Amino acid sequence: MKKAHIITIGNELLIGDTVNTNASWIGSKLTESGFSVDKMISIPDDYTPIIEEISDSLQKADLTIVTGGLGPTHDDITKKAVADIFDSELVENEAVLNHVKEIFETRGFIFSRSNREQALVPECCEVLFNSQGTAPGMWFERNGHYLAVLPGVPYEMKHLMDKQVSKKVEEYIQDLDTNIIEYFRTAGIPESTLSDKVGDLDQFTSNGVRVAFLPNPSGVTIRISANSEDKLVQLREMLQDRAGKYIYGKGKNLRLAEVLGELLIEKNMTIATAESCTGGLLSNEITDIPGSSRYMLGGVVAYSNDVKKNLLSVSQNSLEQYGAVSKKVALEMAKGVAEYVGADIGVSSTGIAGPSGGTEEKPVGMVWMGFWINGEHFALRSVFTNDRLINKERTVMVILESVRRRLLGVDSLPYELKPQQT
Amino acid sequence: MKKAHIITIGNELLIGDTVNTNASWIGSKLTESGFSVDKMISIPDDYTPIIEEISDSLQKADLTIVTGGLGPTHDDITKKAVADIFDSELVENEAVLNHVKEIFETRGFIFSRSNREQALVPECCEVLFNSQGTAPGMWFERNGHYLAVLPGVPYEMKHLMDKQVSKKVEEYIQDLDTNIIEYFRTAGIPESTLSDKVGDLDQFTSNGVRVAFLPNPSGVTIRISANSEDKLVQLREMLQDRAGKYIYGKGKNLRLAEVLGELLIEKNMTIATAESCTGGLLSNEITDIPGSSRYMLGGVVAYSNDVKKNLLSVSQNSLEQYGAVSKKVALEMAKGVAEYVGADIGVSSTGIAGPSGGTEEKPVGMVWMGFWINGEHFALRSVFTNDRLINKERTVMVILESVRRRLLGVDSLPYELKPQQT
Repeated sequence: MKKAHIITIGNELLIGDTVNTNASWIGSKLTESGFSVDKMISIPDDYTPIIEEISDSLQKADLTIVTGGLGPTHDDITKKAVADIFDSELVENEAVLNHVKEIFETRGFIFSRSNREQALVPECCEVLFNSQGTAPGMWFERNGHYLAVLPGVPYEMKHLMDKQVSKKVEEYIQDLDTNIIEYFRTAGIPESTLSDKVGDLDQFTSNGVRVAFLPNPSGVTIRISANSEDKLVQLREMLQDRAGKYIYGKGKNLRLAEVLGELLIEKNMTIATAESCTGGLLSNEITDIPGSSRYMLGGVVAYSNDVKKNLLSVSQNSLEQYGAVSKKVALEMAKGVAEYVGADIGVSSTGIAGPSGGTEEKPVGMVWMGFWINGEHFALRSVFTNDRLINKERTVMVILESVRRRLLGVDSLPYELKPQQT
Repeated sequence: MKKAHIITIGNELLIGDTVNTNASWIGSKLTESGFSVDKMISIPDDYTPIIEEISDSLQKADLTIVTGGLGPTHDDITKKAVADIFDSELVENEAVLNHVKEIFETRGFIFSRSNREQALVPECCEVLFNSQGTAPGMWFERNGHYLAVLPGVPYEMKHLMDKQVSKKVEEYIQDLDTNIIEYFRTAGIPESTLSDKVGDLDQFTSNGVRVAFLPNPSGVTIRISANSEDKLVQLREMLQDRAGKYIYGKGKNLRLAEVLGELLIEKNMTIATAESCTGGLLSNEITDIPGSSRYMLGGVVAYSNDVKKNLLSVSQNSLEQYGAVSKKVALEMAKGVAEYVGADIGVSSTGIAGPSGGTEEKPVGMVWMGFWINGEHFALRSVFTNDRLINKERTVMVILESVRRRLLGVDSLPYELKPQQT
């Protein structure tokens, strides 16, 4: 397999002010393109390590991607260092100069000498034109090894990777392996249960076929990969067969709220939310999806009991007899918001988000979720963790996944929770 | 300065399935402790690169932190590789074995052979007891260079860094530099304007004192650092003097909603939210703070016009005459929710979040924010970006910061926006 290294340059990475999302984004892209990413390195904006690490990678990797240190300020020295590695003069590139001038004109800024330096590039490189910013990308070759140098600003880097580096790779680097990677997304099923449902994988994972279970607070993702399309056919079918009802969709960045939204559009249904412990996260998740106003009518964040009573018609009696965190109140909230707003579906959350406020009977992490789906009325109870933000996130995922499964008639609910009626 | 390297091991890092938050977290900790973090490296779970990179760092760095590859599965080979580097046998550690057994007993899991292997450690190391999980941390020394090997699970790694590695560093590594780093947080002021307000820094930044402006969608952070406390006194005073009213607080992870919450508690005031384009993000941000139920009464997510009318008393006339995205509706929403919920403060958002739905008159990114603060009634208008999620985030930050400044009587609003009354 062709090897790739990723070198990210910048003091902010080493002192931990910036999480290195560039490296993982590039790693993912290169893996999909058929490279084996063997090493990621982060170094400061210092001349010697830049020279050493790039020179080393130029020998060991077929392709090296470098980001960062191309700005106009004096600590940005990547361009100078790279020019020295190739023993090449910095020369002014007219196309880049005109582009930089144009950007400054449009924004009404003054064009200074340090901005003019943005148009300097090592004579031996091919310029990767950066329509999104002032720092050009650069493409180099030495003895059949390739080097791309890109700005560290994420959207500029991504633009250059997608539009320019991909073309150069196609032009210059032959015999890349095929690397097919697919992500199956699930929610509301623990890794171990999912793994049991999927069962023994040995017969599918010969021949370089790989399967991995990737858990995180919003759900478990199954990644499958192989070096040819046809090797995945059987595995894919088996996954759908054994665990299909838990898989809400495919795609690394697919969101459950998006899948549910498409389902609501397909069924021509509307939804409304009544949130206590999730505090708006549920409606926020739903409205993060473009076009969600087609099915999301609105919601109520009912933190105080007065709001539960006045805006959601929760009865004083239920609050007194069972408390705000109870099946009864969750059910009333869900029905209340659906009726008040005129939605087909009402969902609710009420729980002890934490980190404090728990009792023996109602510990931190205990949540009641209420559902009113086309007249069907039920509630689910779960006990999550001690972490406030994780509790909010888990509750939202269970609610969205419960509605999805109910609308599709899937015969189990998240975590195999049992619906409890009034 | 003492040098540190960070080596993170795991295929998931290189193929980009996991963003390397461990490296940045450790980088930040080591920098605070007085190390100069010179290099971060990520490599796969492969024997040869693990041996090579750790051996190399053991020579070059005073302290090397390694994470990952300590689990019980067959691709976790870090422990074996490290034992080989030190030419040391793996031996069973009784304390670790008992701890692992106890964990399995508590959780009701079956204790298997591969779990027993978790208790094996290289004979030459000092064990870093991991109360949070089954994989012990390990501490090694060679020729005055130190190595800590930690599990990759973030909360286990953090626990071991805080409780165990910090002690070993204190015990073994002398003459660490002092490295004082402080973060001043601002919101609703662009980097260039903030930089202008702060003005010339040359007289403060001699002597190794450093200042950096770190922009991100939720605001600009000013980082200042020096190798002694007294060098920062003047700079700190100057920042407070010139930009104090824009600084909502100090601390890398401080949240604006937390600062506003403390202010509301201090003033014994309550708040309620009426959200259209932010869709719940505003109330979610407020309720992410533990104890927020003391001042957050609740809110309405009013996506449809019916909800705006029925739950917030927005008039049909305003909706028809000015449209849902208008000063009039923003004002009515803010007052409506405050009155309905009985809160001292009502805030609202209505805008075109995007990515589509804009017109020439009301482009994507245009947002009206309404405020009802103890009877004071005004609205702000801003045009943000084309990105839906960034528009939601910016709107929330401007609203929170506007309330904060208003409550403190600061004489300007975020981005110097002009309040518009009815």
